[in-house]
Amino acid sequence: MAEKRFVYMDHAATTFTKPEVFEAMLPFLKEHFGNPSSLYSIGREGKEAVEAAREQLAKALGANSEEIYFTSGGTESDNWAIKGTAFARRKRGKHIITTPIEHHAVLYPCEYLETQGFDVTYLPVDRYGLVDPAEVEAAIREDTILISVMYANNEIGTIEPISEIGEIAQEHEIPFHTDAVQVIGKIPLEMKKKERNVDMLSLSAHKFYGPKGIGALFLREGTEIDNYMHGGGQESKKRAGTENVAGIVGLGKAIELAAANIEEHDRKMRKMRDRLLAGLLEIPHCRLNGHPEKRLPDNINLSFEYIEGESLLLMLDEMGVCCSTGSACSSGSLDPSHVLRAIGLPPEIAQGTLRLTLGDENTEEDIDYVLEALPEIVEKLRAISPFYKPENICEK
Amino acid sequence: MAEKRFVYMDHAATTFTKPEVFEAMLPFLKEHFGNPSSLYSIGREGKEAVEAAREQLAKALGANSEEIYFTSGGTESDNWAIKGTAFARRKRGKHIITTPIEHHAVLYPCEYLETQGFDVTYLPVDRYGLVDPAEVEAAIREDTILISVMYANNEIGTIEPISEIGEIAQEHEIPFHTDAVQVIGKIPLEMKKKERNVDMLSLSAHKFYGPKGIGALFLREGTEIDNYMHGGGQESKKRAGTENVAGIVGLGKAIELAAANIEEHDRKMRKMRDRLLAGLLEIPHCRLNGHPEKRLPDNINLSFEYIEGESLLLMLDEMGVCCSTGSACSSGSLDPSHVLRAIGLPPEIAQGTLRLTLGDENTEEDIDYVLEALPEIVEKLRAISPFYKPENICEK
Repeated sequence: MAEKRFVYMDHAATTFTKPEVFEAMLPFLKEHFGNPSSLYSIGREGKEAVEAAREQLAKALGANSEEIYFTSGGTESDNWAIKGTAFARRKRGKHIITTPIEHHAVLYPCEYLETQGFDVTYLPVDRYGLVDPAEVEAAIREDTILISVMYANNEIGTIEPISEIGEIAQEHEIPFHTDAVQVIGKIPLEMKKKERNVDMLSLSAHKFYGPKGIGALFLREGTEIDNYMHGGGQESKKRAGTENVAGIVGLGKAIELAAANIEEHDRKMRKMRDRLLAGLLEIPHCRLNGHPEKRLPDNINLSFEYIEGESLLLMLDEMGVCCSTGSACSSGSLDPSHVLRAIGLPPEIAQGTLRLTLGDENTEEDIDYVLEALPEIVEKLRAISPFYKPENICEK
Repeated sequence: MAEKRFVYMDHAATTFTKPEVFEAMLPFLKEHFGNPSSLYSIGREGKEAVEAAREQLAKALGANSEEIYFTSGGTESDNWAIKGTAFARRKRGKHIITTPIEHHAVLYPCEYLETQGFDVTYLPVDRYGLVDPAEVEAAIREDTILISVMYANNEIGTIEPISEIGEIAQEHEIPFHTDAVQVIGKIPLEMKKKERNVDMLSLSAHKFYGPKGIGALFLREGTEIDNYMHGGGQESKKRAGTENVAGIVGLGKAIELAAANIEEHDRKMRKMRDRLLAGLLEIPHCRLNGHPEKRLPDNINLSFEYIEGESLLLMLDEMGVCCSTGSACSSGSLDPSHVLRAIGLPPEIAQGTLRLTLGDENTEEDIDYVLEALPEIVEKLRAISPFYKPENICEK
């Protein structure tokens, strides 16, 4: 066995903050502490830094800076988009269309709205987690006021047909929101071209090597939405609260770096991902979840039969390898993931699921290490599994 | 004139982050980047740091750590308390009691609720901005579901009779929220004793030498409230979203430092404040706003007749002095402040208002400097004011 090393493969849960990002934030954690709403010099410094970051993000998204609103993260962006749209448009109707594989930051606001008299359709997805645009169209009613479909799934990595769904939404004049938290820095977005039919888009800095606690909502000009954070006049009076200046500056720097490197990142991720995946698929009784091609370049999601993901994860942690079973946000729970249920994975298989998400600092040596460690761990766990018996296996 | 110096006297808008706070945050901006929801070691480090900060805050407030929920700041805490309570209790009634001098982060959620069918009573305040507890009691109706009165006003510094109002609220079994953003680190709170009748309390780290973008809501056990950020299971499933670990750690360190130093801070602030105030009140046609005794130890709010606060502020900025006219959150606007209107200050006087809020790094030399600079500036501005004519002054 190779020497123990630290291998972080849970970039979909969070990323480290890049040194350049940290350096950019530093002055705003120290000397440039003024409140951007203030009129004097050290306040203006903060204001200018916030506006520069807004430009950086707008440029990376191919959007106008007036369409960018900073929030405390992806969860707030999703809550704002879903509830802000629902309450603003409730007189027009109470029907919302979404999918059962959304992040909880979309699903739970929808469930909350159901308690407030709204009606939510959860579209079916196929075994890869793909939404069929025709199903979106079929679900549209007279009183549909919002469609929300994630850009790419955080667990299984499947990329949804956002352009097609956006086109349908626009034809029916229904606002379209997408949670793009897992996509930023991985797939180039162009809000004026490719994503021109997306009205609202959520993102979070700590998924693309920025700090935690800061995100943004893209809101296309003219989108009908209530404010969510009511209070001071920040963010053009659309999102109240003293700006997290350092966080915003960090987000700006992180997106600038990500955008400049997006093609190289894609190539590097695919190369490592494909080798790791091919190697791991040699383990018997193991299957890939999510779409084989329409998936994020850095995502591997595998189910190993006859073992539990939790045990895999803990043994990998002992080896220095960080990864995830379900979505990190709910990994405090042992319930089978809602995404794996939605794609029809039987619970006994879903429980043996491992998500490995690659990132910038991973190397080919990391891949070698996991390719050596993981098969051994799977074998060990199966050796002590009461379910892994020849007769069971023969039945399959 | 003394040599130009940088004098920051706008601590009610924001404070610098103390070096010890920054140092505490540093590891969580760098190597300890794990997602606290993750099960492996670097995730657990983040989780433990978050829980340690929760203990620090709970200790400083005399509360249980289970009653502390981290948010993105005072604005989110206020929005959560107000809207979360209103929606959770709407079947019991739709009446809310508050004051016209609340921060916009309370006022605007209330106004929003009015558009959603709720009914809000804005209590009168006296010329000092004080709420009369008898008025609170008189405003209570069968359908009152929430009372929200700020602990101390951010503009004029007046401290409200929170214990008395809390007692009335409790007698009538109505949840009581207070925005204590301006109070933390200045007045010791004891949620089990002095503030035992407060059910919800908002605070924000950047007002007590912590970072921006992080705050907390104290929620007494058993308080009936809807979640506001729906999504992942963070914060005991009450506030979703990946934790801003570095921010939370900074908040914890900042409150620990503030609590340890609260009496000394109070003495130091009062001593400087009283000397500065006495000196400034010698300027003719100048009055103190807010209560003369029941006020925050660091707050001075003065109206200078015949001049505009904006001009004062800009000339002070040129001299290196940072302060505020109204509340920083809305100082992008030139409208007279809602607080000064509510205490009955005529608009022509309100417009000449300056807020000076002292802080930890201020020195007696800073006081000397402002005592030298400000009277000269007032005199200069009055010399060019069309309103400052002998006949106008004689009429007064």
